[in-house]
Amino acid sequence: MELKMTPDDLCAFLDREFPQVSADFAIDALTEDQLTVRLRVGDRHLRPGGTVSGPSMFALADVGVYLAVLARLGPVALAVTTNCSIDFMRKPAAGVDLICRTKLLKLGRSLAVGDALIYSDGLDAPVARATLTYAIPPAR
Amino acid sequence: MELKMTPDDLCAFLDREFPQVSADFAIDALTEDQLTVRLRVGDRHLRPGGTVSGPSMFALADVGVYLAVLARLGPVALAVTTNCSIDFMRKPAAGVDLICRTKLLKLGRSLAVGDALIYSDGLDAPVARATLTYAIPPAR
Amino acid sequence: MELKMTPDDLCAFLDREFPQVSADFAIDALTEDQLTVRLRVGDRHLRPGGTVSGPSMFALADVGVYLAVLARLGPVALAVTTNCSIDFMRKPAAGVDLICRTKLLKLGRSLAVGDALIYSDGLDAPVARATLTYAIPPAR
Amino acid sequence: MELKMTPDDLCAFLDREFPQVSADFAIDALTEDQLTVRLRVGDRHLRPGGTVSGPSMFALADVGVYLAVLARLGPVALAVTTNCSIDFMRKPAAGVDLICRTKLLKLGRSLAVGDALIYSDGLDAPVARATLTYAIPPAR
Repeated sequence: MELKMTPDDLCAFLDREFPQVSADFAIDALTEDQLTVRLRVGDRHLRPGGTVSGPSMFALADVGVYLAVLARLGPVALAVTTNCSIDFMRKPAAGVDLICRTKLLKLGRSLAVGDALIYSDGLDAPVARATLTYAIPPAR
Repeated sequence: MELKMTPDDLCAFLDREFPQVSADFAIDALTEDQLTVRLRVGDRHLRPGGTVSGPSMFALADVGVYLAVLARLGPVALAVTTNCSIDFMRKPAAGVDLICRTKLLKLGRSLAVGDALIYSDGLDAPVARATLTYAIPPAR
Repeated sequence: MELKMTPDDLCAFLDREFPQVSADFAIDALTEDQLTVRLRVGDRHLRPGGTVSGPSMFALADVGVYLAVLARLGPVALAVTTNCSIDFMRKPAAGVDLICRTKLLKLGRSLAVGDALIYSDGLDAPVARATLTYAIPPAR
Repeated sequence: MELKMTPDDLCAFLDREFPQVSADFAIDALTEDQLTVRLRVGDRHLRPGGTVSGPSMFALADVGVYLAVLARLGPVALAVTTNCSIDFMRKPAAGVDLICRTKLLKLGRSLAVGDALIYSDGLDAPVARATLTYAIPPAR
């Protein structure tokens, strides 16, 4: 699927539309197949013991697949998350960022579906996986 | 299922174990069948336009079912969220708290499963639903 | 939500559209709030040991919520299942039917969401729960 | 993860434990990373119009990830499906088998998690995706 936005475009979009959280995220890579987003882990993402919280991982997966949809639709679209299933499989490593690799499985007229795998930076075994569905508004 | 903790016990547990977020939540009601948790909506939970963010709703459902499990196991248990499926069905109303009603469907030796329905305070149609699974450690 | 079909209408619809499986199901009750469907358990639904198979429980939840959608839209609609999350919580009792109680949580213009709880006939603890989403085609 | 069973071992296991359905499935490939299972589509898997039914796709994903777990644990284990989330994304092509590619994401002491992507044989766009969780009994 052709890309309509660059990583810089996506970051500018995040800054404009989600100013409260945009500093938490960085785009590590964007190809036609995969978008990789980084969560710059800070104190506000941690639970006692130093592990990243579940809601922070949910937010990372949601931002990652959302940006993967946007990269293909362009910034005019206003996709809305309608469903997420997420599995927490391992405890994230302390003191490192989280890396989220996302793939779009479907980009239809009214629904988009994408997968996300989340890793502790530098480690091979995924800490979480998620699938997200977005409703795409008709006027585009 | 018998209750081993009161709402006050659960709030004290949240304050001690999750001090970063405990002020966000209040327990509205606890019976043998249902635990109701309130998200005291503040600026940090909002997206532009004034609607509560998806990660905030995820956090509310997770805290709600987690507390429902704890209320029956007592404070020694250390349950870990392993899975969540969540559907976002309507836009939350602006300027009101979110109310989360949770029910435990299973409390086994190693797994607990619970449902959560989230409402804008005072409205009848649910804004989101979620099901969460927790792994319960063997030593209890 | 107003009902546009009776239990007899729904059974006739199943017989016409899904003749391979319609004999497996019976409608026990239909109100504005809830539709209850029965799986008439036969050998083809069983795993060795006499327990009902996972795919049979999936089919029951899918039929149940699908009929709950149809009862409100009328028989012209052609809803398509887009997502299901299902938790298998207990082993079904041997030698009894399964009862599925469904509730619609959302009936929008393009998406419907419903919950299903599945019980062994006569027992109180649910054997499975599921949430299903349907895409509703625009022309209706 | 090391393999403890061959494709022939897995087929023999299916024949012995699930004789009602084992003829529906064939193992196309097994490596340390991926297990590929084929649904030999027959009339009993079809809905009117010739498309494969949802429960048949659910069964395919469940068998695929289950066999991927068994291949690593050996035939003594008795894993039980506890959760499945499945997205139906496209209509399967008529008159061809379905191919399911599965990957294990976690094989812990008590829980296993795996992903499944389902394709119409010969086509590139997936018709469905699923994630399944299995509880693994303690005695092994």
